[in-house]
Amino acid sequence: MQIFLAHSFSGHGEVLLSPEESKHCVKVLRHKVGHVIDIIDGIGNFYIAELTVADPKQCVARIISQRAVGVKKPYYLHIAISPTKNADRIEWLIEKGTELGVDEFSFVICKRTEKTGTKIERFRKIAESAVKQSIQGVIPKINDGITIKDFIAKEKGSKGKKYIAHCLPIKKTDLKNILNEKEILVLIGPEGDFTEEEIALAQMNGFEALSLGETRLRTETAGLIVAAGFKACV
Amino acid sequence: MQIFLAHSFSGHGEVLLSPEESKHCVKVLRHKVGHVIDIIDGIGNFYIAELTVADPKQCVARIISQRAVGVKKPYYLHIAISPTKNADRIEWLIEKGTELGVDEFSFVICKRTEKTGTKIERFRKIAESAVKQSIQGVIPKINDGITIKDFIAKEKGSKGKKYIAHCLPIKKTDLKNILNEKEILVLIGPEGDFTEEEIALAQMNGFEALSLGETRLRTETAGLIVAAGFKACV
Repeated sequence: MQIFLAHSFSGHGEVLLSPEESKHCVKVLRHKVGHVIDIIDGIGNFYIAELTVADPKQCVARIISQRAVGVKKPYYLHIAISPTKNADRIEWLIEKGTELGVDEFSFVICKRTEKTGTKIERFRKIAESAVKQSIQGVIPKINDGITIKDFIAKEKGSKGKKYIAHCLPIKKTDLKNILNEKEILVLIGPEGDFTEEEIALAQMNGFEALSLGETRLRTETAGLIVAAGFKACV
Repeated sequence: MQIFLAHSFSGHGEVLLSPEESKHCVKVLRHKVGHVIDIIDGIGNFYIAELTVADPKQCVARIISQRAVGVKKPYYLHIAISPTKNADRIEWLIEKGTELGVDEFSFVICKRTEKTGTKIERFRKIAESAVKQSIQGVIPKINDGITIKDFIAKEKGSKGKKYIAHCLPIKKTDLKNILNEKEILVLIGPEGDFTEEEIALAQMNGFEALSLGETRLRTETAGLIVAAGFKACV
C-alpha cells in the first residue's frame, strides 16, 4: 500500500505533496490526473484524494474523504538515548519505536558515547517511512543531538515523570511499575553506561533511577523494551 | 568483553571449545596457555577458566570458578513467526528476542508467507552471539521451518497457552492481559495476515485470538512487542 505524506494544504480542500513525494508519485508510481491516492498528514489524519495535478515537482490532490487515524494513546513517551557506534542500531530503534508509538526521540551525548555525530535528517526520513507503513497518526518529534548536561538542564521544567536507566546497583523503580504513567521521559545511556557524575546530575534534577531488568541490554534494545512495554500495556 | 561458548565438557573440570571458537581464541584474540577466559554454556552457567591447550583446532580450559547466570524467568515464551521477505528483519528479531529472553523460535510457513527458505544455521549463530553479548543464561531453541498445518498439529498436545495474533476484526484477548501467563506460545503471521482457513484451523486447535493493539505492526515488530511485553512485566 502506497501512502503519501502531505507536505501542505492549499486551504481549498487540496493536499500538496513535497518535491520528493511528487517525483515518486509521478515518475516511479506513474500516477496520473484522476488517480486516487492515500495520504496521511503525520498529525492524525488519513485522506483519500484525487490527483488534480500530476507534476513531478509538485503534485496536488483534491480531498475526497478524510478520517482520524492512529488510536489516541493515553500516554506521551519521550526516549532520550545515547547514539550507538553502529548507526544501523539507532536507525532500527527509530523505525521500531515509531511503529510502537514513541512520541519523541532525543539523542544525548554522554561522556562514554562512542559516536557523537547524528544523522538527524536521515532519522526523520526513517520515522516518516515507519509512520506511513503503519498508518500511524503521528510522526515522532526527532530532536537534534545535545549533550547530557544541556539535556538535563533543558528538561528541568518539564512536566511528567523523568527516568534514567543506568546500571549502578542501587534501588530502582521497575519498568513494569511505571507503565501506567501518562507523560514519561526515559534517558538511556551508552554501552559503557553513564558516569557517576552524569547519574548524580540527573538524579539531582528530577530523574528517578529505572530498572529495565537484570540482564544486560544493548542500548537500542533498552529503548525498544521501554517503547514496547508502554505499547503492550496501553 | 569476549565470552566463549562451551562446546563440550571433558568430565574432568575442563571445557572444550568448538573449532570455530578455538580458531577465534588463538588466531584472532591470540590467547595462550595460562590465559584466563570467560565461558558460558548456554544453559545457565558462566565459567572463569584457564586455557590449558591453546590449539586453534580445539582449545581446552580448566574451570577455575563457575556461577549461575541469567535470572530465572517465571515464564517460558515460544514465538512462532512467518519468515519475512527481507531476512534482516527476522535476524533482528532473533537477536533482540534472544536479548529479551525468548525461549524458543519457530518459523512457520503460511499461505501468504513471502519467503519460504529459512537460514536456520545463521539464525542459531545470531542467537548464540546475542546470548554471549548479554550474558544470558540460555540460548533459545531455534526450530526448523514448518508449514502452519504441521505446526498446529505438532503443538496439539502442548501444555501452556497458545495464541494467534491475526488481523480479523473479531473479539480478541489483549496482550496486556496475558503477561502473567507462565507458558506461552504466540503465532504471528505474514504481512498479508493468515488466511481465514489458517485462523479457523488454529482456533479449532486451542489457539486463542490475540490482539497486539490497534495499529498495524510489521511481522517482526509484532514478535518484538510480545517478547518485550513479557520481559518488561516479569
